[in-house]
Amino acid sequence: MSLAKPLILITNDDGINAPGIRKLIEIMRPLGRLVVVAPDKSQSGMGHAITVTSPLRVSKLTEDIDYLEYSCNGTPVDCVKLGMRVIMRQKPDLLVSGINHGSNASVNVLYSGTMAAVLEGAIESVPSIGFSLNDYSPKANFEGFEEYIKEIASEALRNGLPSGTCLNVNIPALNGTPVKGIKVVRQGAGFWEEAYEERIDPFNRHYYWITGVFKNNDNGRDTDLWALKNNYIAVVPTQIDLTSFETIHLLQNWKLNRKGKK
Amino acid sequence: MSLAKPLILITNDDGINAPGIRKLIEIMRPLGRLVVVAPDKSQSGMGHAITVTSPLRVSKLTEDIDYLEYSCNGTPVDCVKLGMRVIMRQKPDLLVSGINHGSNASVNVLYSGTMAAVLEGAIESVPSIGFSLNDYSPKANFEGFEEYIKEIASEALRNGLPSGTCLNVNIPALNGTPVKGIKVVRQGAGFWEEAYEERIDPFNRHYYWITGVFKNNDNGRDTDLWALKNNYIAVVPTQIDLTSFETIHLLQNWKLNRKGKK
Repeated sequence: MSLAKPLILITNDDGINAPGIRKLIEIMRPLGRLVVVAPDKSQSGMGHAITVTSPLRVSKLTEDIDYLEYSCNGTPVDCVKLGMRVIMRQKPDLLVSGINHGSNASVNVLYSGTMAAVLEGAIESVPSIGFSLNDYSPKANFEGFEEYIKEIASEALRNGLPSGTCLNVNIPALNGTPVKGIKVVRQGAGFWEEAYEERIDPFNRHYYWITGVFKNNDNGRDTDLWALKNNYIAVVPTQIDLTSFETIHLLQNWKLNRKGKK
Repeated sequence: MSLAKPLILITNDDGINAPGIRKLIEIMRPLGRLVVVAPDKSQSGMGHAITVTSPLRVSKLTEDIDYLEYSCNGTPVDCVKLGMRVIMRQKPDLLVSGINHGSNASVNVLYSGTMAAVLEGAIESVPSIGFSLNDYSPKANFEGFEEYIKEIASEALRNGLPSGTCLNVNIPALNGTPVKGIKVVRQGAGFWEEAYEERIDPFNRHYYWITGVFKNNDNGRDTDLWALKNNYIAVVPTQIDLTSFETIHLLQNWKLNRKGKK
């Protein structure tokens, strides 16, 4: 069956009706047989959450030639697991997630449901790519970078990815200017400086809304943050092994196992 | 104020009343001034989720000498952010999370709310440690390793940790046998092989419960999985930079930027 079109699993965290996933489906359509399994509502900010305490439901929405579309009441990671274990009963040749409404560059990879789905693919040794647009606006423009997404996805299908790795692809907000190209870069250092807005409810109880601004902590010109700022598409090869091997060596100097020594 | 006791932030994902966090509080009490901010209910499986679409509430439960305890209706990451930005209005000298009911070794670090809180500490350059017991049972025995936890926490206070890194500490289920000691190891490779149990509700609709078994994919004797299996406490230095630098080099061979070239 080497002539069969590749099998591609598509998900996101903004929900099945988000403009980002509709665009991604459109772009991926010529590349293979598509199975879309996406949350039935926005799951933004869900990180690598999985649903363990409530039942999961799946609804088939569309069945067409080389195209199946399902919604699920779970998180993006639930969608990937259900997609592989229940719906397809096999691993896809490629998993793509997005296009996320908002950047997943820098530490945002850790908060992102879009990238959690992609890391889940990497755990399963499936070549997996997350696509995110650096524009949080509901009116974000998803035009002008289609060929780049197709190029990255085609190369991932052709070359595969090393076990335990995946790609975090972030696309600059274009607003009419053309993309300059693709940069393969590292995850930049940054953090969210939250300001919690405190309010008082009608029952005189305090509550808080989270707001915040992202702070770039990294002057490097080899980061995803730099690439985005300079109108390049940022591709960060991302791994599921979080071990800091440098720190393993450092810990040899710690006084551990004192109590353990008999 | 160098004579001041260190300020320690404590959280978890099993909720403020879980035996694991009560034990951790007891162990940490002699080490400093404690501020506990933990979820008001179990947030297990929430990964690095943050609460963006609903208001957050915080309740002070206990105020004592060198001891403050709050519950919060958010996730572990919300607890860390609120703890630092709203409650303490400063960074602690140490953040500890746990003791989790269940292992966070291997890829479980990616699903874990306990470790998400710890990674959040690392993003904020706070020395941060997650403690987990490899026993999911509600009757898990949290006795017999207190001195090891104290030792690891004391060394983290004394030495600090490199920026962007934290510790993922997993403790073997003891059942009466003594811990052999502490091993500093790497994150082992593994995955969850899910079996979704399909049921039909009274309205003839299908639904699924997630179940599964963890599969160890790694024969190494330098992993957290090996250490736990051999009755050692596993300490994995863990980092927030997920970049796969090896794969950056590999991607030089991909045919990218073809469309971008004018």
